[in-house]
Amino acid sequence: MEIKIIGKSLPNIPWQDKPADCIFPVWRYTGNPITEWNNVGKTGRIFNSAVVPKDGKFVGVFRADGHKILPQIHFGTSDDGIHWDINPDYIHWKDENGEEFVSDYGYDPRLVEIEGTYYITWCSDFGGGPTIAVAKTQDFKEFTRLDNAFLVPNRNGVLFPRRINGKFYMLSRPSDYGHTPFGDIYVSESPDMIYWGRHRKVMSNKAPGWWQSTKIGAGPIPIETNIGWLIFYHGVCNTCNGYVYSFGVAILDRDEPWKVLYRGADYALTPEMPYEVSGFVPNVCFPCAALADADTGRIAVYYGAADTYTALAFTTVDEICKFAMENSVLAPKDDETVK
Amino acid sequence: MEIKIIGKSLPNIPWQDKPADCIFPVWRYTGNPITEWNNVGKTGRIFNSAVVPKDGKFVGVFRADGHKILPQIHFGTSDDGIHWDINPDYIHWKDENGEEFVSDYGYDPRLVEIEGTYYITWCSDFGGGPTIAVAKTQDFKEFTRLDNAFLVPNRNGVLFPRRINGKFYMLSRPSDYGHTPFGDIYVSESPDMIYWGRHRKVMSNKAPGWWQSTKIGAGPIPIETNIGWLIFYHGVCNTCNGYVYSFGVAILDRDEPWKVLYRGADYALTPEMPYEVSGFVPNVCFPCAALADADTGRIAVYYGAADTYTALAFTTVDEICKFAMENSVLAPKDDETVK
Amino acid sequence: MEIKIIGKSLPNIPWQDKPADCIFPVWRYTGNPITEWNNVGKTGRIFNSAVVPKDGKFVGVFRADGHKILPQIHFGTSDDGIHWDINPDYIHWKDENGEEFVSDYGYDPRLVEIEGTYYITWCSDFGGGPTIAVAKTQDFKEFTRLDNAFLVPNRNGVLFPRRINGKFYMLSRPSDYGHTPFGDIYVSESPDMIYWGRHRKVMSNKAPGWWQSTKIGAGPIPIETNIGWLIFYHGVCNTCNGYVYSFGVAILDRDEPWKVLYRGADYALTPEMPYEVSGFVPNVCFPCAALADADTGRIAVYYGAADTYTALAFTTVDEICKFAMENSVLAPKDDETVK
Amino acid sequence: MEIKIIGKSLPNIPWQDKPADCIFPVWRYTGNPITEWNNVGKTGRIFNSAVVPKDGKFVGVFRADGHKILPQIHFGTSDDGIHWDINPDYIHWKDENGEEFVSDYGYDPRLVEIEGTYYITWCSDFGGGPTIAVAKTQDFKEFTRLDNAFLVPNRNGVLFPRRINGKFYMLSRPSDYGHTPFGDIYVSESPDMIYWGRHRKVMSNKAPGWWQSTKIGAGPIPIETNIGWLIFYHGVCNTCNGYVYSFGVAILDRDEPWKVLYRGADYALTPEMPYEVSGFVPNVCFPCAALADADTGRIAVYYGAADTYTALAFTTVDEICKFAMENSVLAPKDDETVK
Amino acid sequence: MEIKIIGKSLPNIPWQDKPADCIFPVWRYTGNPITEWNNVGKTGRIFNSAVVPKDGKFVGVFRADGHKILPQIHFGTSDDGIHWDINPDYIHWKDENGEEFVSDYGYDPRLVEIEGTYYITWCSDFGGGPTIAVAKTQDFKEFTRLDNAFLVPNRNGVLFPRRINGKFYMLSRPSDYGHTPFGDIYVSESPDMIYWGRHRKVMSNKAPGWWQSTKIGAGPIPIETNIGWLIFYHGVCNTCNGYVYSFGVAILDRDEPWKVLYRGADYALTPEMPYEVSGFVPNVCFPCAALADADTGRIAVYYGAADTYTALAFTTVDEICKFAMENSVLAPKDDETVK
Amino acid sequence: MEIKIIGKSLPNIPWQDKPADCIFPVWRYTGNPITEWNNVGKTGRIFNSAVVPKDGKFVGVFRADGHKILPQIHFGTSDDGIHWDINPDYIHWKDENGEEFVSDYGYDPRLVEIEGTYYITWCSDFGGGPTIAVAKTQDFKEFTRLDNAFLVPNRNGVLFPRRINGKFYMLSRPSDYGHTPFGDIYVSESPDMIYWGRHRKVMSNKAPGWWQSTKIGAGPIPIETNIGWLIFYHGVCNTCNGYVYSFGVAILDRDEPWKVLYRGADYALTPEMPYEVSGFVPNVCFPCAALADADTGRIAVYYGAADTYTALAFTTVDEICKFAMENSVLAPKDDETVK
Repeated sequence: MEIKIIGKSLPNIPWQDKPADCIFPVWRYTGNPITEWNNVGKTGRIFNSAVVPKDGKFVGVFRADGHKILPQIHFGTSDDGIHWDINPDYIHWKDENGEEFVSDYGYDPRLVEIEGTYYITWCSDFGGGPTIAVAKTQDFKEFTRLDNAFLVPNRNGVLFPRRINGKFYMLSRPSDYGHTPFGDIYVSESPDMIYWGRHRKVMSNKAPGWWQSTKIGAGPIPIETNIGWLIFYHGVCNTCNGYVYSFGVAILDRDEPWKVLYRGADYALTPEMPYEVSGFVPNVCFPCAALADADTGRIAVYYGAADTYTALAFTTVDEICKFAMENSVLAPKDDETVK
Repeated sequence: MEIKIIGKSLPNIPWQDKPADCIFPVWRYTGNPITEWNNVGKTGRIFNSAVVPKDGKFVGVFRADGHKILPQIHFGTSDDGIHWDINPDYIHWKDENGEEFVSDYGYDPRLVEIEGTYYITWCSDFGGGPTIAVAKTQDFKEFTRLDNAFLVPNRNGVLFPRRINGKFYMLSRPSDYGHTPFGDIYVSESPDMIYWGRHRKVMSNKAPGWWQSTKIGAGPIPIETNIGWLIFYHGVCNTCNGYVYSFGVAILDRDEPWKVLYRGADYALTPEMPYEVSGFVPNVCFPCAALADADTGRIAVYYGAADTYTALAFTTVDEICKFAMENSVLAPKDDETVK
Repeated sequence: MEIKIIGKSLPNIPWQDKPADCIFPVWRYTGNPITEWNNVGKTGRIFNSAVVPKDGKFVGVFRADGHKILPQIHFGTSDDGIHWDINPDYIHWKDENGEEFVSDYGYDPRLVEIEGTYYITWCSDFGGGPTIAVAKTQDFKEFTRLDNAFLVPNRNGVLFPRRINGKFYMLSRPSDYGHTPFGDIYVSESPDMIYWGRHRKVMSNKAPGWWQSTKIGAGPIPIETNIGWLIFYHGVCNTCNGYVYSFGVAILDRDEPWKVLYRGADYALTPEMPYEVSGFVPNVCFPCAALADADTGRIAVYYGAADTYTALAFTTVDEICKFAMENSVLAPKDDETVK
Repeated sequence: MEIKIIGKSLPNIPWQDKPADCIFPVWRYTGNPITEWNNVGKTGRIFNSAVVPKDGKFVGVFRADGHKILPQIHFGTSDDGIHWDINPDYIHWKDENGEEFVSDYGYDPRLVEIEGTYYITWCSDFGGGPTIAVAKTQDFKEFTRLDNAFLVPNRNGVLFPRRINGKFYMLSRPSDYGHTPFGDIYVSESPDMIYWGRHRKVMSNKAPGWWQSTKIGAGPIPIETNIGWLIFYHGVCNTCNGYVYSFGVAILDRDEPWKVLYRGADYALTPEMPYEVSGFVPNVCFPCAALADADTGRIAVYYGAADTYTALAFTTVDEICKFAMENSVLAPKDDETVK
Repeated sequence: MEIKIIGKSLPNIPWQDKPADCIFPVWRYTGNPITEWNNVGKTGRIFNSAVVPKDGKFVGVFRADGHKILPQIHFGTSDDGIHWDINPDYIHWKDENGEEFVSDYGYDPRLVEIEGTYYITWCSDFGGGPTIAVAKTQDFKEFTRLDNAFLVPNRNGVLFPRRINGKFYMLSRPSDYGHTPFGDIYVSESPDMIYWGRHRKVMSNKAPGWWQSTKIGAGPIPIETNIGWLIFYHGVCNTCNGYVYSFGVAILDRDEPWKVLYRGADYALTPEMPYEVSGFVPNVCFPCAALADADTGRIAVYYGAADTYTALAFTTVDEICKFAMENSVLAPKDDETVK
Repeated sequence: MEIKIIGKSLPNIPWQDKPADCIFPVWRYTGNPITEWNNVGKTGRIFNSAVVPKDGKFVGVFRADGHKILPQIHFGTSDDGIHWDINPDYIHWKDENGEEFVSDYGYDPRLVEIEGTYYITWCSDFGGGPTIAVAKTQDFKEFTRLDNAFLVPNRNGVLFPRRINGKFYMLSRPSDYGHTPFGDIYVSESPDMIYWGRHRKVMSNKAPGWWQSTKIGAGPIPIETNIGWLIFYHGVCNTCNGYVYSFGVAILDRDEPWKVLYRGADYALTPEMPYEVSGFVPNVCFPCAALADADTGRIAVYYGAADTYTALAFTTVDEICKFAMENSVLAPKDDETVK
């Protein structure tokens, strides 16, 4: 069966062909990393970044930690998706009444267009802990912050790129207030992006593969294919010298996205390169965004490396989905509905 | 100003007058405890219990731990609110499709009538952790369980007894998967009891009074008064030999229930009696329900003692509200809106 | 099917008939506790105790904590199994060469006669942690300590009262160096009481029943019946104010004692009485020994209460085995051989 | 050798003779506890208390936890040392400039007269943690608070009742910010009660006796005898259900008080009575003060029970010192000078 | 005294002479690392590896973590001991009945020939935790797994290469279920490789040298010399950013191998090179095997680097033993028999 | 206003001009690191180092961890402050009586000349924990160790380079016995370098800037300027893979050094270079000494990198003070006197 992306053409997607000797379904951009220490102004490190195509070019929202190591979300633009022009000042949110919505920090954004509006979800402070903030914009000039989607503490909120059966859906990962030594992915439903309910558990950390045995969290916006929603997600294992963040893939049911159809038991990419194993946080590959071209099936994944750099990796929808299908092993209850 | 309950008459509310030498705003029923070890069938201990008046008598839902020490919710009836006839079997929930809704455990129920329907909220298992379950019933024979209100982990979900500005409101306490060494009270809003949003922080554990310095959690259904919503809530401190659960009171704004008008810095009742300081969990006074008589202002509070017994205490709306007002000290930001 | 003890008569077993209103399979001796604070000399508290019949009377080895709160094993005798004459000095062990075997502490002994020799197993210090010590005696005057059975850390070593297929068997509970928040029961095999191997897992803490969800450990010497080995074992749950130690029962296969035939999901006895819920360690019922009369099926269980008192409870082989059989729920893999 | 108190007569010292069957060197007052729940005003619990004779009667400073469970120091007077009249308001300290010295809390006071001035040391907040506060008074009306003696965190600061070789000396116990699972006693020297140095370690928790294996801390003001400074100190062990606080005794060199001459390996008193094993903090006997009569050698020890009650116990200088001498076992290095 | 290896010739041992400027008794192979990321098939990382000479060439068993990061044991061959041909599939064990012995994982193997049979010990899962698995093979085609040697949890089981006084001996390190922040080396005795007993403590982490202050564990099979058993062992210290694994050496008595004759207080090699300080687990040098040539005294040590690479280092028996002897400092009781 | 150093000329201060593209107030020496692995003898790593000018050249005391990884303090000399001749043997302290003052370890020294005497403060063992040792020397041949300044546990003791109002002053950071997940800077006063008191809190970890949110500690000897005492201090944040040590600056009042006038909210330097992000302890920049030239305002900061290397960085008094002033944000109460 041919696996195809259901979506738009993106002929100028960043791309490199697969090296002949690569045994993995995902291969790194040879020009990595695409951001470095002290990129612009006082941004310090730019690493977990969310991008979408817009008007033939690319726009994105980026985590920058700055000289206080206090992360905020910055806006940026690019002609080719590789070289980025980041705003040295961070985004100043307004609330629904047009007043400033002050928050202490923001990190790990995701960005998606739904019905002509761009939505950003990220991790922000609420009442003393982190939770999923939601904002929308039409033009990337005015950003309106909606109510937080969930109670604290939560991280890694990722919207689906369209309504399903008339409802919005968001993946998230309930957390603790610290570095969270556990974590499963849930999906929640909303009629209006304000009120959320009908929570369902999607995937747990109990899958085969020690790389994802401590916690997992959704990454880029799900990519719709003819066999289901393709998701990249990070998985973490707890070695005797700290966490290692790898990433893998799973495919969710198109109509009932709390059902896991396939889940690759192997990691697709794990920290191996110097810019991944060493830096502010050693051993991190953390995907937050993906571009996809429906014509060719090409996919470009943006991932944070060592909480210090932005890196890029490539795959095709056919290769990555077959990778998930062919080494799929579901965790206990991954295929049941847990309400 | 005279403080009055806004609600119904309840002439047969359980009651004893205040002893002359009592220096606290709340006094114990001299017949305490009203449940004992091994009450009926294999219920083991019955302690955190939620009751409402119905048809001139009383009905309630009760936590019973049983001989596996696996808590479930049981139904019971009483003529006087003091002597209870508890069903030895636990409640078997149906989902909205009429099929059995299986759950491993349930504990710490609250019960309220809203617009002619009885709603139960309690703590149940969801995807590996505890969260707030919601069920409704008309007749206490068929119990329909709705979707869980929030993601895990959460405890102490307490509904307001009427819509406010057309919306339902629920207090809750985000938690961790263990014994939760932290905890603040939040309020969430819902148009339909299914989808929840517009979360606001209500009260933190940063108030004066070490008795509430570790965590707090809402107790009985809020009691409406002419000056605001009267809430009893438990507060926990961490001594060098474990937690001590006392309870106190606060008054929330009637229209904006995330605003704390008054918050008593002193505890209203703390474990002193043998049935409170010793038992399955030493040093616990945990209020879950209250009856109120609008005519006389009398209030009867049901509280679990030592996770072993059910106990009863009394106060009047005037005395307890003035206690809150006169020794009120808000925690930092208790009087701000945190969204 | 009639369930019978396979063993000796013990007509003078301590005994009281079951009270009419008791809903449990085990009932307490009304004269409890049978030891008190400061029993004899400087023994302080005597609580976890192991007894056997001998020459028409009873002998036993007892944990006494003393005025340093440093536990040692003391010898004692009794005419009726209830009133005990304890030696104020502790047992001084010799090694196999007849030289003193010095150890810092000893606690929680078990005692059994096998092939005419009395064996004591208990918890002692080895190389900085606790493990299972083994000693033997013919006359309770000379006590020869053999090599420790296992590496550290281990607790609750309990021998079977006869060889099975020519080998000795011992239950034990691998532990940590502290208060061990986990714990399953294993069985090990030995040709000679010196070398141990062919370890098998018997039962885990993953059974239904929160009362045994933190850890479990074997108690008295297994009692042989026509349907299998009857074992009493303690189970621990972790409340928000510390551990609660209850006890329950299981029945193991007579020939392959690593196979669990039945396991009662309910506790048989849990701390309810003042001498169980309060003391040096609150909320402890910890069984270490049992007497059994094959003629009547009567069983008397000795258990430590609150790490302060010795208490006694009664049952019959028929009642307790049917209790195990009728509410039996095995933990995952309890019925598999794990080697 | 006859052991004698070096000090003043105190003919009206509270006293009861030793019961015939008591095997311990310290015996309880039969009227214990001498304070109860809710003694006066809103003091809640009064338990760790420091008393001295004055003008033929007795005065004292007391820890009271109040209805916020926020401890403060209260002044009290007594005719007989048993029945106390406690001030419902706490002491308001001034600094050396006569301005109010605000502190959030104060607990566990000790009180001593040195050269005609009364000094109070207690545990108070300093820069976010607990340390040893020092205050002086002539008349128990004006209390002048000096600078804190040490950096944070520290607890259990106890002054010697006279200069030694011209210097003041204070025992203390470096701690952590929580419940401190470790702790040894040090002594520090001062020329002026302001600057402290020449710190020496006195005793560690590495002594024989599990009762003192977690931490130790000095108790009452040292009592001078012809053989050395008699000190009562509390020792804590960590059972599987929390800490147990017992107390024992040691004798320090009169001229070099960092040298331990004798240290009783046994506890002198451990929680056994209902008012000691159950209450706000179960299993606590915590001595803070002692009265001594040089004529008769009688000593009355005041100790907090269960952080809820004040209790009294008796001994004589001869009996308690011989107890220390006859079962003395020093911890490693207890007899060396550690600077 | 001349120190000599008691064993076989191995003229083709991998070898490089010591660099002139090396101040350590062990020097690295300049071609390190000898395995890299993604060596063959889906082996991912190959690092802790056990090799022996066979038929003029070399064979070995290797830990490979694979793309699930789930370690298994793989077989490999080499002509020169440096370039290895690893089987991409892992070893499938049979039990003594010839049936498959399923286990979830296996890691850190050691390999030894005893009396013509090759024995492998490694860390495998047993009943929920890690313990020492034992297998034997004649031909490296059929691998028969014997019973696990010890109860859980245990790691680093290392056999001696011959019987001593007719018994087999194995070193091991009792552990916990996590990353084990403690650990000493014990030795156990067996008549038959099935039953183990007469456990003795060999070496603790209380030695001088902070590099081994957290835990220690045996490494390669002990090398017999005329002065005792030469062992390389790893030592771990706990820095503020995780563990550092170095290795050192000790010499055990030939007849009573629980007696430590010499123990080098210095590390012999510590992570300094990029392939040691950075990788999947930063800062690890973990020796698992050694080759020795009795003719020349040359020794080649194989060690895992950063849990990512295999590396090689060299020494001679004379140099390394004198290093141990000349800076030997035994830990407390290292020279006593602890049974 | 022109900011000037109040102090001596140091024309031969190590120096490089600021690179044109550097956006930070501090820039690295291009020859970094100035010490490497295994510098001299068995020093292993030399990294946290304290230097002063002397007789036209430079002397210093250095932390060297050695081959036991047991840190000691070594003396060294240099002509240019960059190339150092370190003594392979560590300093052997005498006490005030001229006898050897044995200590197990010493680390993180600071060095200062006051009134013609050189004082060294460092972290050493005292009674089982770390505290601030103090020694003095005239000639760097005889080193006299005074009494420890404070009770345990404490670290990062830093003397002011002159008396203030006739008293000596020392900064320090109360700690715990492990890796101390908290920590504020206090200042203490002494008339004589023996007795210390009048403790005041200076700065907390509650400042803006996550880089300093876990703990802070003073670094080099304060540099006097016309606007206040310039201090460099390290700040630590707790990432999900361990701590990151950056450093920043603050300016304290010249007469009341417990008052913070300015505190730079940004870090001045954070680990970015390979020798800072990887090594024995990844991600550490830890300043311990600074040289200053009053004529030019040049400052050279010595900092340990990755607990492995010594590195050097430059700034000027004008640039660094304005950096502190212009992005100054005080922590709560940083500007109050906390006694």
